[in-house]
Amino acid sequence: MRALVLLSGGIDSALCALLAKKEGRRVGALTISYGQRHAIELERARRLGAAMGLEEHLFLDLPPEVFANSSLTNPSMSVPMDRLIDASIPSTYVPSRNLVFLSLAAAAAEGRGIGEIWIGVNALDYSGYPDCRPEFLAAFEAVLNAGTKAGTEGQPVRVLAPLLRLNKAEIIRAGHDLGLDFSLTWSCYAPAPGNRPCARCDSCVLRARGFGEAGLLDPLTAAGSGGGV
Amino acid sequence: MRALVLLSGGIDSALCALLAKKEGRRVGALTISYGQRHAIELERARRLGAAMGLEEHLFLDLPPEVFANSSLTNPSMSVPMDRLIDASIPSTYVPSRNLVFLSLAAAAAEGRGIGEIWIGVNALDYSGYPDCRPEFLAAFEAVLNAGTKAGTEGQPVRVLAPLLRLNKAEIIRAGHDLGLDFSLTWSCYAPAPGNRPCARCDSCVLRARGFGEAGLLDPLTAAGSGGGV
Repeated sequence: MRALVLLSGGIDSALCALLAKKEGRRVGALTISYGQRHAIELERARRLGAAMGLEEHLFLDLPPEVFANSSLTNPSMSVPMDRLIDASIPSTYVPSRNLVFLSLAAAAAEGRGIGEIWIGVNALDYSGYPDCRPEFLAAFEAVLNAGTKAGTEGQPVRVLAPLLRLNKAEIIRAGHDLGLDFSLTWSCYAPAPGNRPCARCDSCVLRARGFGEAGLLDPLTAAGSGGGV
Repeated sequence: MRALVLLSGGIDSALCALLAKKEGRRVGALTISYGQRHAIELERARRLGAAMGLEEHLFLDLPPEVFANSSLTNPSMSVPMDRLIDASIPSTYVPSRNLVFLSLAAAAAEGRGIGEIWIGVNALDYSGYPDCRPEFLAAFEAVLNAGTKAGTEGQPVRVLAPLLRLNKAEIIRAGHDLGLDFSLTWSCYAPAPGNRPCARCDSCVLRARGFGEAGLLDPLTAAGSGGGV
């Protein structure tokens, strides 16, 4: 069985790829550039993919005009810092991003005869994004059933989200257990000069909290490591 | 009210844009290049957009690696000719194309605060594509409800498909009534040298049949016009 994993360069998608391999899948990855300000994650995705030995690693460049009006893509907006993470949807929300990513993955998978897409979304320790919730994934699978040749022939591409119910500490512990090299991952939305994590955006805060709760050291921020590239 | 129309350069999407204007929408358009062999339609889309006076015309280039395994994008496959159009899904089906197109339109619309996507699919005189059917569009709207900020806030981007129940003759007659300049449109999947319609692919066959049943002459194929660019 072949699987196509959406690999961003972050911890969640890296664990997702490792889990697919552990389940015996022949794993390809899809990494998408969309004008994100933390483009360093793309290079991390490349290195993660190389370290894992993927069957194929597809890189797509989306024109930056697609995703407007997010602080992750629009340089004139600021990434929120020192935010008390709550249930609201922050400015780092990128409109319809996972919908576009899953659709591109579905197209690539269907055209290649790949039966599964794996995506590392999780609905617990997340940043309030509606496209990380199970009801979104269920609705997306219904689209694949109704609107693709594979679906109408009873062989729709399936969407698997094995991290959906894990919190960040569990994700980090699982990655540790599978030998994930966290120094190859990237999370920060607003890299400081020298490509150092800012330590203050939602993504850095969630990562630090997760490592703390997991009782592990983050090589990107551990004293002396620096985390620069 | 603003609307974003998926404009391919064909008759259906051109009529769709004219209908949106007729309904009083401020119309923007999205035209997507995806490695299609009939890339001439992109230039037609540009000319159609210019003739209509759009609020914005967004062009996106998708990397050709997205859509594999279709005779519309893969030069090593042949576009079927002289086919008796039936209920089967032909090789010109592009895996998950309308899903990708609608997702990109949804992202662009949501980011711009545009409330409607208009798409010129029709479920009667079509080529057997599952992503032209009402059940696909309904499932896609459900995704927008579940997985976008606009949706969770009760203001999802809506998808309108005013041509869904029209046959090709009705579409051509409606275009004629709204002053659509058919010489600016393009349909042929497999342009002959000199950018002439092949007259034998499904798309040419449907177009010719539609003009015949509508009792109108197609300026692209009428004697003496040639249809070259």
